[in-house]
Formats: sequence, structure tokens, C-alpha cells
Amino acid sequence: MKTVDLNCDLGESFGAYTLGRDAEILKHVTSANIACGFHAGDPATMRRTVKLALDNGVAIGAHPGLQDLIGFGRRDMDISPEEAYDLVVYQIGALWGFVRAEGGALQHVKAHGALYNMAVRSERLAQAIAEAVYRVDPSLVLFGLAGSELIAAGKRVGLRTASEVFSDRTYQADGSLTPRRLPDSVITDDERALAQVIRMVAEGKVRTQQQTDIDIQADTICVHGDGVRAVEFAGKIRSSLSEAGLAVQPIGATPAGSN
Amino acid sequence: MKTVDLNCDLGESFGAYTLGRDAEILKHVTSANIACGFHAGDPATMRRTVKLALDNGVAIGAHPGLQDLIGFGRRDMDISPEEAYDLVVYQIGALWGFVRAEGGALQHVKAHGALYNMAVRSERLAQAIAEAVYRVDPSLVLFGLAGSELIAAGKRVGLRTASEVFSDRTYQADGSLTPRRLPDSVITDDERALAQVIRMVAEGKVRTQQQTDIDIQADTICVHGDGVRAVEFAGKIRSSLSEAGLAVQPIGATPAGSN
Amino acid sequence: MKTVDLNCDLGESFGAYTLGRDAEILKHVTSANIACGFHAGDPATMRRTVKLALDNGVAIGAHPGLQDLIGFGRRDMDISPEEAYDLVVYQIGALWGFVRAEGGALQHVKAHGALYNMAVRSERLAQAIAEAVYRVDPSLVLFGLAGSELIAAGKRVGLRTASEVFSDRTYQADGSLTPRRLPDSVITDDERALAQVIRMVAEGKVRTQQQTDIDIQADTICVHGDGVRAVEFAGKIRSSLSEAGLAVQPIGATPAGSN
Amino acid sequence: MKTVDLNCDLGESFGAYTLGRDAEILKHVTSANIACGFHAGDPATMRRTVKLALDNGVAIGAHPGLQDLIGFGRRDMDISPEEAYDLVVYQIGALWGFVRAEGGALQHVKAHGALYNMAVRSERLAQAIAEAVYRVDPSLVLFGLAGSELIAAGKRVGLRTASEVFSDRTYQADGSLTPRRLPDSVITDDERALAQVIRMVAEGKVRTQQQTDIDIQADTICVHGDGVRAVEFAGKIRSSLSEAGLAVQPIGATPAGSN
Repeated sequence: MKTVDLNCDLGESFGAYTLGRDAEILKHVTSANIACGFHAGDPATMRRTVKLALDNGVAIGAHPGLQDLIGFGRRDMDISPEEAYDLVVYQIGALWGFVRAEGGALQHVKAHGALYNMAVRSERLAQAIAEAVYRVDPSLVLFGLAGSELIAAGKRVGLRTASEVFSDRTYQADGSLTPRRLPDSVITDDERALAQVIRMVAEGKVRTQQQTDIDIQADTICVHGDGVRAVEFAGKIRSSLSEAGLAVQPIGATPAGSN
Repeated sequence: MKTVDLNCDLGESFGAYTLGRDAEILKHVTSANIACGFHAGDPATMRRTVKLALDNGVAIGAHPGLQDLIGFGRRDMDISPEEAYDLVVYQIGALWGFVRAEGGALQHVKAHGALYNMAVRSERLAQAIAEAVYRVDPSLVLFGLAGSELIAAGKRVGLRTASEVFSDRTYQADGSLTPRRLPDSVITDDERALAQVIRMVAEGKVRTQQQTDIDIQADTICVHGDGVRAVEFAGKIRSSLSEAGLAVQPIGATPAGSN
Repeated sequence: MKTVDLNCDLGESFGAYTLGRDAEILKHVTSANIACGFHAGDPATMRRTVKLALDNGVAIGAHPGLQDLIGFGRRDMDISPEEAYDLVVYQIGALWGFVRAEGGALQHVKAHGALYNMAVRSERLAQAIAEAVYRVDPSLVLFGLAGSELIAAGKRVGLRTASEVFSDRTYQADGSLTPRRLPDSVITDDERALAQVIRMVAEGKVRTQQQTDIDIQADTICVHGDGVRAVEFAGKIRSSLSEAGLAVQPIGATPAGSN
Repeated sequence: MKTVDLNCDLGESFGAYTLGRDAEILKHVTSANIACGFHAGDPATMRRTVKLALDNGVAIGAHPGLQDLIGFGRRDMDISPEEAYDLVVYQIGALWGFVRAEGGALQHVKAHGALYNMAVRSERLAQAIAEAVYRVDPSLVLFGLAGSELIAAGKRVGLRTASEVFSDRTYQADGSLTPRRLPDSVITDDERALAQVIRMVAEGKVRTQQQTDIDIQADTICVHGDGVRAVEFAGKIRSSLSEAGLAVQPIGATPAGSN
């Protein structure tokens, strides 16, 4: 039976500011990417979110981002590979503190925003991030865009990787996501999105904007948790996958190599 | 043979700003309290300082402070015990990331500046800090002012503690440090400072400003690393202790209970 | 005809985080206290809020706070008078930049949160804040709790002051607000709150928790803008004041000395 | 008689961290670019630096940078023109607060680090920065690299501009600075540097790495203040210019249009 993981960004509140429907989305996902205080999140939010994930039986991952709170870590910064390494080590460690204090375990690491996007194409940044994860804990699973330099770097350093796919984004013939500035980059029709994601998991294929089919590795699906509709759609994805005979479980619950 | 630890605050540089003579002071001390990015320090500095400490065979501790970079963590803030707990867990974890990545081990935790000072008298803050340390790793040693609420809280939660003494500060009859605003609070004569610290370690006694002798537990001595003279004086303390037949070694190298 | 000002804290969003119903509350108030980026707010939010206030004909004030974004400026910090002076000058200036760029004028300064509260009783902090305001622009109006050290300091340095009252808080016989930890500190009954505020403006009197009447100067009323009910209640205050024959207008529109 | 301005970055200390030889370099320069708290500087440092500049009769400019304290504003960030506009308005205003409080006047604005560099080639960022300066105060002088988009944008919006040249950097045939990664990008020989800068001011010409002479506008010369040798060299530039019959004075002291 084919299995897939459902992941979502969580713990993005900060101080007096609340963001996201964490308690609701945790009913649907199997892996939580928890912000670590650089682009979002703060110590109190991290503690609460770790506890909430554990209470819901959702696997926990660190979600390190650029040190750009005001830009939510979404603005590309010209950081060196060494700087990327350092900020990933720091943030994994910070989250580990709360996971350990709550008696849980850390499953994975997923870079956030601009850090994630820059590591799709930059081999040097990807290598630095993968090494950071490996050196902190070689048993951690590295999440990255399917087909990205980050996944390649993770395999190279000896990490288990999880190739991430998107239900609501269209793909190009080279396997990249259609840039958001182009037409039809985002899939707004739920049925089309569900069909795409089920086919990616079941067949390992996706139809590109160029009307060709390409192979795609779908270990984990990114879902959003920042709106009523997003939470509902996450539920739909989960039930559709089940109906299609696909098992939804945390990546760490699937034996390595089987996915 | 009586033993004592020599500790110093390190890794206090930030970005383009350099502070402290870390490489030099590491020749003299046995335990390094490394700043964790809140009151001082940054990810790159933490990585470099951890490596430097390991290279010098100096034991490593997390040095969490208040989130007040501009005030260097020295200004009292009215934080709740829960906030204290959270910021200690976060910062221990962050440093742990680098220690782990470099293949080392974390020995202790020493709160910085205002956080340290507030935990001398506040039982609630002390309890929160001690619990944070214990929940992240119950084998960590908690540093605190000899006779403080922090040491009491550490013992209460089941942590090994290290009572800290100062060579260059005078003491009051109740065991507290003479406040800096009062006369003769700081000992500027080296011979007097050395005599005080050797007696504290050898006899467990200190002469107070009230001209009485009180008992004092001296597990670790705080030395400074922020000036040429400070580094020289650290060397003097170390050689004076040796000459007095006292062993200087990291707190973690002494069997618990023997000090 | 007696006049009074209605003020509200605004521009408290930050980056990806949205807070407050600024557009709605601006329909009801006459003076806006705009956050300046230390405890809340950011440059983009400041620009937008200044523009929104100008579009609504609402007078603009700087709302400087402690440099504690994570604590929303609500935690007391042991800052020196010099530090208070510096952070007030900085934040007034920053807001002035946007006011000037939009072609408006700055009317007043109101300290935020812990800075406001500490300046109620600390003569030294109050003096520093008042001097900061005066030295940047002696024509600015200084807001402060009626009867506070801040109002006294403002008068001393030569500033026009506006004594602030609260509709939803009870008062003690010495003119201070009943601390929030005590019973009946907050007035939850709308009618009672409206009656209190109208009496404060019309008669300059308030009934204390000790059941005595004391004199109170009510130049400006603090209203909240962070909830549907808060916005509605602001509208009620405004209409109740009008029905009681009291004019609601920005403090700067009232000739100095007449209030 | 030809005139030129000598400018230097100042006020780059932060909290407990000291940087630069501000008091010494102020003896040699005519314009001070004062950091505004984003990439460096803090409110206390700004106050002290403004006062120091006024005491030395040195003209004051705001030196806004990216919100990247840990990277000292030197790392390119993918900010929007609107974000550039906002952060420039904010930082000019903040410095204006201190200048006003000390009874001085603001002469100019010079962007810092990556913001300066990005505005050399990006017309959109350059336009945003120029508009920010103009809208805060149209009488401010905009500093920028000679021949850059920033100078063009400044002229376009109606600002007086000051074209900046470097004594210690070599130039390309297109008027750009030789990138630091290329050989001979930095001039380390003092005599060569002095000869280059005098010729730029006296003749408006510079010899490029391609061995051609190009026209260059030299209104202000950038000098460094972060080392003993840098301060000495600033003195040498100043005396060499005088010996060559060139007057050194703040840009604002020269009638607009004459330079």
C-alpha cells in the first residue's frame, strides 16, 4: 500500500500576534513544520505548538527561516552557505529544546520561504543546509521540493529525504513549479487539485503545463493552515487520499527506502 | 584534594561587532558560558566559540539571557516565570545544536546578567529556570550564585548545582554580594581578591563587610575575559589556586556530591 | 461648550501580522496614537496608518514604547531616564518622517504600555519623556494619565498636556487606576462606563472605589480598537458625549488653556 | 575655486558594542553619515554622534540601511521599492529627531551598504529612495555613487545630489567600481589613491582599469573611519586636497549648481 505524508507550517504566531488555525489543521496533517523564531514564532509559541502536535499525534519538524521577521522570511537574502548552515543549526537546536522538554522526538527539517526557494536551485546553499541537518542529527528527515538541489544534497550527505509536492501549484516540464507571476500557476479548482495530488502519489506522475507527463516523487504533500477554506481543503485531501487507497502517515512511520 | 571550576562568559560578539578575548581566556578557564543570541552572540559566533572551547578542552555551558540585545541583557525586565522557562529552553536548545554539530557535550547552564540576578531572590523565576534546564536535560549542571534561590531551586528539581563565587566582589553578612552602588563593593587589589577566593575554596569561608566570617560554597569561580588585565588576572587566579594545592577542573569532571 | 478628545492606539500591525480594526475605529476617534516600530508597528504600517488618519481627519500622535516587540511593550523594564529620553526622541522622529511625507502634522505624543505606566509614578522617567518631547518639538501635546508624574513633568518643561481618563476602569481615592488584579478594576457594564466618562468630562469628577468623589481632569478619553465590541463602544461613547452636549474634537483643535 | 566634501560613516556602535573612531575621524571630514538603528547604531549612539558632529562643525546626514543588524546591512535583500521607500522615510525621521533635539539641521541622506549598492543599478529602488528623501524634506541632498541610477533618480525627483567618488577603489570604463572579487579593485598605495582623488576633483577625470580616461563627477569623497590607518589617511586626503588648491567643505555650504 502506497503511503504519503501531509505536512503544514505551524507555530507562526509571535508575541501578541496570532496567525494560523493550528489546532484545526493538526486534525488533518501528519507532520508539523514548526517555526523557530527567526521568520516567525517565539519561545512561548514553540512550546505550545510542540505540545499541541504531540497531543494530536502529529510528527514534529523544525522549520528554520531567514532572520527576517518583518518580511516573514519570504524575501531572498544574499546569505553565504556558512550563514545558512549556522541559522539552520541554531533553529533546529532551539526547537529540539522544546521537543525534548515535552518528551517528544524531532522527525524532520523543512526550510521556510526564501530559504526553501533559494535551496531549490543553489547547490551551495542546499549543501550547507543538508550538512547542518546531518551534523545536528543524522536521523532527521530532510524535506525539500521534489527534484530540487536540496533533495540531491540531502541524499549526498547521507540523510533520509522527503520529496515535497504541491496540490495547488502547476508544474513545468523540467519539474519546477510554475512561477506565481505566470498564468495558471495556482490551481484554484479543488477537484483538479485533488486529482493532481492523488495521481502524483499513486502513479508518481504529474501532467505539466506543457501537456507532457513527467515523473515526480511525492513523499509528502504541503497543505496550508491559514484560513477556514485551507483547513477544509486539507481535510478533503486527506479523505480523498484514503478513498483512493493511499495511506496517510508521518514520513518517519514509513520505513526508509519504501517511499 | 579540593577542586574548583573556573568559568567565564564567552561568545559575546555579534555580527560585525567583536567583544571579549575569547581565545586568550580559554587558556585559563575550565568552563565556558556561551551566549545564545538573545542578549549577545549570534549563530556564527556560537559555532566558532563552541569549536574554540572544544579545541581548548574547556567544558561548555549555555548562557541564556533576556531578549534585550541593546541592553546586553543587563536590564531587569518584569518577565513571568513561564517566559523565563521558555527563553531558557530555547537558548539551551540553540547552543545544543552547535555543540552536537561539533561532536561535543553540554555540561552546564548559567543564566546571564539580569536573569541571573533576578533569580538570586525570586523563588518563582528560579524555579522556572531550574525546571527548564531539568526538562531539556536532567544531567546538566545548574550554575547560580552561592546561597541563591536559583541554587535552592536546582536542588529541589533534582539538578546537580554549582555554587558560584566572585573573587573581586565583597560579601554581606547574609551571603549576598555588596551592591555595586555601595563603597568597597568591588575588590580592586589583586592580592586581596586572590586571598579571598583561595579561602573560599580551601576553607569554605568568606569574611564579610560586617567583619564576620560566613560559610560559602565555592564550586566555581567567575572570571572576566573582557580586557588584557582581566585575562592576566584569570591566569593569576589559576596559578594561585594550584600553588595553594587546589585542583582546577571543570565542574563536570568532579564526581557529583564530592564538591 | 466643554470639549474632549477621543484617542485610540493604532498602527499595531507588524509585517505579516495584522492587529486592530484601524479603519473602523478611525470613524469614531479624534486622535490616533500610532505605534512607532519598537513595541509594535513597522515602517509600512506607519505609512498606511498615517495616511488613513489623515484621510479620516483624525489628529496624529506618536506612540513610543519599550523596545520589546515580543512582549508588546507591556513588560516593565529597568531603563534609565536617559534611555527613555533616547527611545522617545527616536520614535517621535520616525513617525514624523511619515507624517511629513504625507503632508500632515504631528499633534501629540502618548507613551505606550509599560513606558506609560512607569511614567505615572516615576518622576525621573516622566521628566526624561517630557524633555524628549519638548526638545523634538515644543508645540507637541503630551498625553498622560490624569494626575500622573508625566502630566506634572510636561507642565514643568513647558509642554501643553492632555490628561487622559478611562471609561472602563475604576479609580482609587488617590486618583490612580484600580490595579487590574483587584476586583472591579474594569467596568464591564456599558451604561456605567458611559455615565462615568460623561461625568468626568462634564463635571470634572469621578466616584472612586472608596465611594468618594474626586476631581479629575478629562482632556482626552482612551478608547480601544481591538475588537468588534470595542469599536461599537467607541461609537457609543462619542454619541453619548454629543447627546450630553459635550463637543468631541482633537485636543489640538481646542485652544490651549481652555481645557 | 573648486570645492569638495569629505564624508564618513559614523555612529555604527550598538549597545555594548563599540565600532569606529568617531571622535578622531570627525576632525577630518565635513559630512557625517550617521547610522539610524537598522543595520547599525541605536538611539543612544545616534544622540551622542549627532552631538559630536555638531560640536565639530561637521554636517549631518542620515545613513539608512537594510533591517539586517546581524549582517550589518551588507547582504542584498530582495526588497520591493515600497519597502525601500518606507525604511528610508523611517530612518531619516528617526535621525531627524535627534538632530532637532540638539538644535542642528539635517544636510543629506546616504544609503548604506547593500541598499546603496542595489540602488546603483536598480532604477526602481533608486526612484523609491529618492522619493522618500524628497517627501520627507526636498531640501536634503541625496548622496550616491557618481553615475549611478540613484543620482539620476535624485535629479529626476528634484533633489540636489552629491556624486560620490572613492579614493581607494579602481574604476571600470563604464564608470562602475571594479568589483572587489577582481584583481586591483582596491588601491592600497596611498600616493596612487591621493593622486586619483585629486585628479577626480580637480579635472573631473579618472583613469580606468581599461587605461582610458573617463569623466567623473566628484562632489564628495568617501573616507573610512574604522582603523588607525584609515583615520590617518583621511587626514592625508584632506591636506593633499588643500595643497592642491581645492577647498574642502560640506556639500551644503557650496551653492547648489556650482558643483
